Amino acid sequence: MCQLLGMNCNVPTDICFSFTGFQARGGLTDHHRDGWGIGFFEGRGVRVFLDPRASIDSPVAELVRQYPIRSLNAIAHIRKATQGEVALENTHPFQRELWGQQWLFAHNGNLAGFAPQLSGRFRPVGSTDSELAFCHLLDALASRHPEAPPCAAQMFEELRTLSAEIGAHGEFNFLLSNGERLFAHCATRLAFIIRQAPFAAAHLADQDVTVDFRELTGAEDRVAVIATVPLTDNEVWQCLPPGTLMSFHHGAVERSAATLAAASAK
Amino acid sequence: MCQLLGMNCNVPTDICFSFTGFQARGGLTDHHRDGWGIGFFEGRGVRVFLDPRASIDSPVAELVRQYPIRSLNAIAHIRKATQGEVALENTHPFQRELWGQQWLFAHNGNLAGFAPQLSGRFRPVGSTDSELAFCHLLDALASRHPEAPPCAAQMFEELRTLSAEIGAHGEFNFLLSNGERLFAHCATRLAFIIRQAPFAAAHLADQDVTVDFRELTGAEDRVAVIATVPLTDNEVWQCLPPGTLMSFHHGAVERSAATLAAASAK
Repeated sequence: MCQLLGMNCNVPTDICFSFTGFQARGGLTDHHRDGWGIGFFEGRGVRVFLDPRASIDSPVAELVRQYPIRSLNAIAHIRKATQGEVALENTHPFQRELWGQQWLFAHNGNLAGFAPQLSGRFRPVGSTDSELAFCHLLDALASRHPEAPPCAAQMFEELRTLSAEIGAHGEFNFLLSNGERLFAHCATRLAFIIRQAPFAAAHLADQDVTVDFRELTGAEDRVAVIATVPLTDNEVWQCLPPGTLMSFHHGAVERSAATLAAASAK
Repeated sequence: MCQLLGMNCNVPTDICFSFTGFQARGGLTDHHRDGWGIGFFEGRGVRVFLDPRASIDSPVAELVRQYPIRSLNAIAHIRKATQGEVALENTHPFQRELWGQQWLFAHNGNLAGFAPQLSGRFRPVGSTDSELAFCHLLDALASRHPEAPPCAAQMFEELRTLSAEIGAHGEFNFLLSNGERLFAHCATRLAFIIRQAPFAAAHLADQDVTVDFRELTGAEDRVAVIATVPLTDNEVWQCLPPGTLMSFHHGAVERSAATLAAASAK
């Protein structure tokens, strides 16, 4: 299956260390060779680097690994194609503008028989179930809130309902961000870690690389990293229970709720 | 002022040679140090590389110069800020989706007192007159054609009317593409060249670099290159008359019409 990586921080942070381990899964330590992408929010703007080639062979991935782009929110994806051919337009993360905000979305899983009615405001450019789900999410939010985004609590609740609804069609692990918050939905597999003082050294699981965060961080820094599979082998990651939506803000867990129908009471 | 660069081809072509000369204008041979960007259409997908730093110092520009991305349509921009601070969200080209197509837009000029009524479907993320003009263009097209794009002739005519209307507010040189056609509007300064057989060698005006296109092209290849100022010093470029909209398709001029009010009869 595909691999997801997300980061949400309280101070702009580069993702080079995590991306180094993540990149290795795109053809070196794992079999995802159908393209990759990463998007960084910087202020209100967003930069997305996409490559339909395997990340381990990609000059663009090499640039991202070496060029420290500092961001409060980032989303990366390595693709193992299920629906939609290997092509640039099917490469995650997908990007759209809503309410004058940029939104990024990446999905891991497979939705079957998913054919939502779209208003036409957001239409898929490619042929993946993933981009279709993203368009449906934004379409639903835009139709309910045409003028401005709802408050954070209501946004979370609507995303919880939508995640449950879309998740009824199949495996729907996703990362979504508008540059302020990062939303993570675990259908089957997703883990996270919050790094904050006292910082320590971390060692990648996929490559023999260690970073000592004590040398790179300030006392107030806080970084949440979310990944399909833990990226380091000497830290304690928390696995999200299947059927959970979480929102991260300023590097911390802000909200968490069940999305499985049987556990829909918060 | 800013610098624009566009390419429209009949076979996927890399823009490395033209971009090498263009990149030099971002801080080396000219004084545009307020960021740069380039977008490539590949199939239905689009890849946009943005950097709010001067292109001559940018590791991303270095990657683009050396990594031959083959594209039928590309748009690049080097910014000299007039409205809007130097920030990623104000960096061209801007990107939106309409009718399930990606659209890219870059602008050179300055619009004064331009405050169109927007429906809210496309909203600026940054604070430039340029992104506002792009949102207005797409908003107008979407409201007139909610379901699907009009035919090419009608699209051109609507863009001609919109260019004239927006151009009444100030200097409005722009490049616009949906991956099929490239539209170029000259308000004050824009030039183009069509390269086709028999090919020859070309020498950059901004750097001592020569490329012999005979070694790189097939007999049927055709490439239109559009730039604020001619990029080579040994070829004949055609200057667009101020107040002209042109559309390029498959590396050739498809349509051309006046957009000045006084010359609005085609």
